[in-house]
Amino acid sequence: MKKEDCIFCRIANGEIPSDTVYEDDCFRVILDLNPANPGHALILPKEHFADITELAEPYLSRVLALAAKIGQAQMKALGCDGFNVVQNNGEAAGQTVRHFHVHVIPRKREETEKIVTWTPHESDPAQQKKIAEAIRAAL
Amino acid sequence: MKKEDCIFCRIANGEIPSDTVYEDDCFRVILDLNPANPGHALILPKEHFADITELAEPYLSRVLALAAKIGQAQMKALGCDGFNVVQNNGEAAGQTVRHFHVHVIPRKREETEKIVTWTPHESDPAQQKKIAEAIRAAL
Repeated sequence: MKKEDCIFCRIANGEIPSDTVYEDDCFRVILDLNPANPGHALILPKEHFADITELAEPYLSRVLALAAKIGQAQMKALGCDGFNVVQNNGEAAGQTVRHFHVHVIPRKREETEKIVTWTPHESDPAQQKKIAEAIRAAL
Repeated sequence: MKKEDCIFCRIANGEIPSDTVYEDDCFRVILDLNPANPGHALILPKEHFADITELAEPYLSRVLALAAKIGQAQMKALGCDGFNVVQNNGEAAGQTVRHFHVHVIPRKREETEKIVTWTPHESDPAQQKKIAEAIRAAL
């Protein structure tokens, strides 16, 4: 189902033009207008899902294979050395448009800018056990 | 197939202990020893695949549904407001262990630390068209 006031629904369904790199019955893949790196692509389902917690079949089982395909094409076309697959859920996680999307971000060895990274923190074994137990209980 | 000298193969198959939050026939989900945030989880396939370009069925079609399940359990158990699903391919992209894995990172609204983010850059429309064409041709 499309959502009328959703910009990604309109882009995915071709009502708003975009630099499309791939399209099939379920997905449109476009270039991000504000890329982290040149070639930064967004995978958009043609149906509306706010985030991964809503995503249904056949999107759910097909989207990762598509990310692999796009990333490999970026490496071939742009000569990059790797790529990140990033999918944010919720504003707190940096999701700016509430229509499920997957970022495929080309990466080069010689970059100096910080992209898709974090500071690894030390963990306390007793605390980790408690957290693991809490997550297991919530599954 | 397992790879004898791969630490994630050994963890996924239970040869090295870990704080496991979930396990099934294909995957083990553990807590990252050096979390970006408390509850940071790693989804590991029990078979060895270097990265997403090698990942085969049934892993490929099942892993995203598992990420959704883990993220929702983190939100429920830890009271976080969202989560990132991150999968890095190649050293240039920050992949430190060459065994496919998916990070599920809990996020809270009040964080001040930069996690899984990037600087959005302006793009040139003519350049975007050229890049999109190059990627389409490489698919």
